[in-house]
Amino acid sequence: MALYTYLQLKTFTEQVFVKIGCPAEDATLAADALVAADLRGIDSHGVARLSGYLRLWEAGRINPKPQIKILHQTPSTASIDGDGGLGLVVAPKAMKIALEKSELVGSGWVAIQNSNHFGIAGYHAMMALPKDMIGFAMTNASPLVAPTFSTERLLGTNPIAVAIPADKQPAFVADFATTTAANGKLEILQRKQQDAPLGWIQDSTGNASTNPNELKQGGALLPLGGDREHGSHKGYCLGAMVDILSAVLSGANYASWAPPFVHFLPLAANPVGKGLGHFLGAMRIDGFRPAEEFKQHMDTWILRFRNAKPIEGQPKVYIPGDIERETAHERQTKGWELLAPVEEDLKNIALKFQLSL
Amino acid sequence: MALYTYLQLKTFTEQVFVKIGCPAEDATLAADALVAADLRGIDSHGVARLSGYLRLWEAGRINPKPQIKILHQTPSTASIDGDGGLGLVVAPKAMKIALEKSELVGSGWVAIQNSNHFGIAGYHAMMALPKDMIGFAMTNASPLVAPTFSTERLLGTNPIAVAIPADKQPAFVADFATTTAANGKLEILQRKQQDAPLGWIQDSTGNASTNPNELKQGGALLPLGGDREHGSHKGYCLGAMVDILSAVLSGANYASWAPPFVHFLPLAANPVGKGLGHFLGAMRIDGFRPAEEFKQHMDTWILRFRNAKPIEGQPKVYIPGDIERETAHERQTKGWELLAPVEEDLKNIALKFQLSL
Repeated sequence: MALYTYLQLKTFTEQVFVKIGCPAEDATLAADALVAADLRGIDSHGVARLSGYLRLWEAGRINPKPQIKILHQTPSTASIDGDGGLGLVVAPKAMKIALEKSELVGSGWVAIQNSNHFGIAGYHAMMALPKDMIGFAMTNASPLVAPTFSTERLLGTNPIAVAIPADKQPAFVADFATTTAANGKLEILQRKQQDAPLGWIQDSTGNASTNPNELKQGGALLPLGGDREHGSHKGYCLGAMVDILSAVLSGANYASWAPPFVHFLPLAANPVGKGLGHFLGAMRIDGFRPAEEFKQHMDTWILRFRNAKPIEGQPKVYIPGDIERETAHERQTKGWELLAPVEEDLKNIALKFQLSL
Repeated sequence: MALYTYLQLKTFTEQVFVKIGCPAEDATLAADALVAADLRGIDSHGVARLSGYLRLWEAGRINPKPQIKILHQTPSTASIDGDGGLGLVVAPKAMKIALEKSELVGSGWVAIQNSNHFGIAGYHAMMALPKDMIGFAMTNASPLVAPTFSTERLLGTNPIAVAIPADKQPAFVADFATTTAANGKLEILQRKQQDAPLGWIQDSTGNASTNPNELKQGGALLPLGGDREHGSHKGYCLGAMVDILSAVLSGANYASWAPPFVHFLPLAANPVGKGLGHFLGAMRIDGFRPAEEFKQHMDTWILRFRNAKPIEGQPKVYIPGDIERETAHERQTKGWELLAPVEEDLKNIALKFQLSL
């Protein structure tokens, strides 16, 4: 099987985005955001999604030339209309506004409406790191998750990312879906024809299920916690908070009105807002204490956890971001293989646009 | 058994805080924050803790006359030294600063060092509601929680609260520990001599346990998710984020250095900061969209969830804050019973300070 390099996939992705009409600068931005997912080992959110973006573009649901504009603002907050653009373009531009506000008044918070899927949340949060800021990113998503006690799918996997700089240690980068398991993990089990653990999904009547295909039959993903006894109401609170900050605050579609990622599902009738929503933020560390002092304490924090006594037979304690950073280092140096259907997808895209992969 | 009223318990608590040397205004503030927990049905965080606060005061670990001061600030951020005061006094004063900053520049974020236990996080977050702002509150706490894959207790139950106003519907108020179950729930099982569900706790070697007394034998509470397969690494991320924002950012003690709530456990040798830490924040809704428009959409959001189809045999879908608000309404009108040991505690306190309960 062929090994692909970061540069090769990024260049290809960039060319594809140019082909669908993105200005060169936007195509570069989008490719950088998208392929960051593959590099960090989050294969479900990288080039595997490229064909999905193209189908949304073909269906007229993605505007390749968005004119992003600020709708409301204060010195530390703003809401932004993404003009139906790729989230991969809209979100980095919105995060830039959050960083500028943070530079000026200590923190910056931006809610975005009328956008689309933005890749991995961690990419946007990490934009804060080189500026000695703490970065936050979240987004709502296709409704696949049932709140505690319901059979209806009202929330997305609604991820939260937080990026916090350290000194000699690498940064703390948490990036996680607010469900027990992300949808990508179910897709892996479907391909392997393996059962899912209890606590990940329920069937269409709300019974616990281990069938990874349950979502195709009206089932739902479960909020982090799985069931009430194990705190699913807390996962539901987190997913709800992400939905409200990303979509109610920005003027996007929330709850079951959130637009689906797949082109073959219709958009909700009577939309309550525009497109998908994100919420991004940044805080200057030196708005609280000197950055050097903070970062040295972050090193102490990180080392305390990394060196904590492991349970016998279990791996060490990881710092959020460790695994993704190690994967990125390995893939950056050695390249990596694509799953056969993803490679096939990219080859078809190359053929269609007369590009070489 | 006697029924107690809100006013009766609040007045008593206020008098007790005056007796230990709090200025009248601080005693009122602290009593309001503390008894709000009982009113909302979170009995573990209300007057049941009064004797604990007194023992910390007797041990010289609480300063009844704190001079709170701002250490660093920007227009939208600040760090605050709580001067060893009650968190019940320090946190509402810090939240007031966050609200003032939010009024001026759209959002306000305050990290607090050198504080103590602050009651329920929700109380502080809810201070934002009457101002048409979204409120956030979190705190680190006594280390009782093991990160995924470790036997060591490095985090507290580290709660997160988010309060979001609506229009005709009551506000959305999420307030939850970032563990599968809060410590208060274990205490209830201990009293009832019942087993805990799997996924709440582990024993001192890291094995799954159902013994609610496990924490007294070196066991640990588990992060939300319970085990790796069910997403405990996400609960660990959340608890870690709360610890870092509350304590590393403010200059308080973090990780295993966080001060214990119980007076009989020693403070950590070589502290890495001062006291316990909190992180509070507020954002003006009209920094993003007109407040009336937002609140009407919150009503739509709330009704969509509240009217979602329930699983057969399960209760309806709750909106975060529903249960606490219903309890508060009932207790406000009818009063409520105290658990026998709590009533006994309060009677002893009354005797000691020559107060009538």
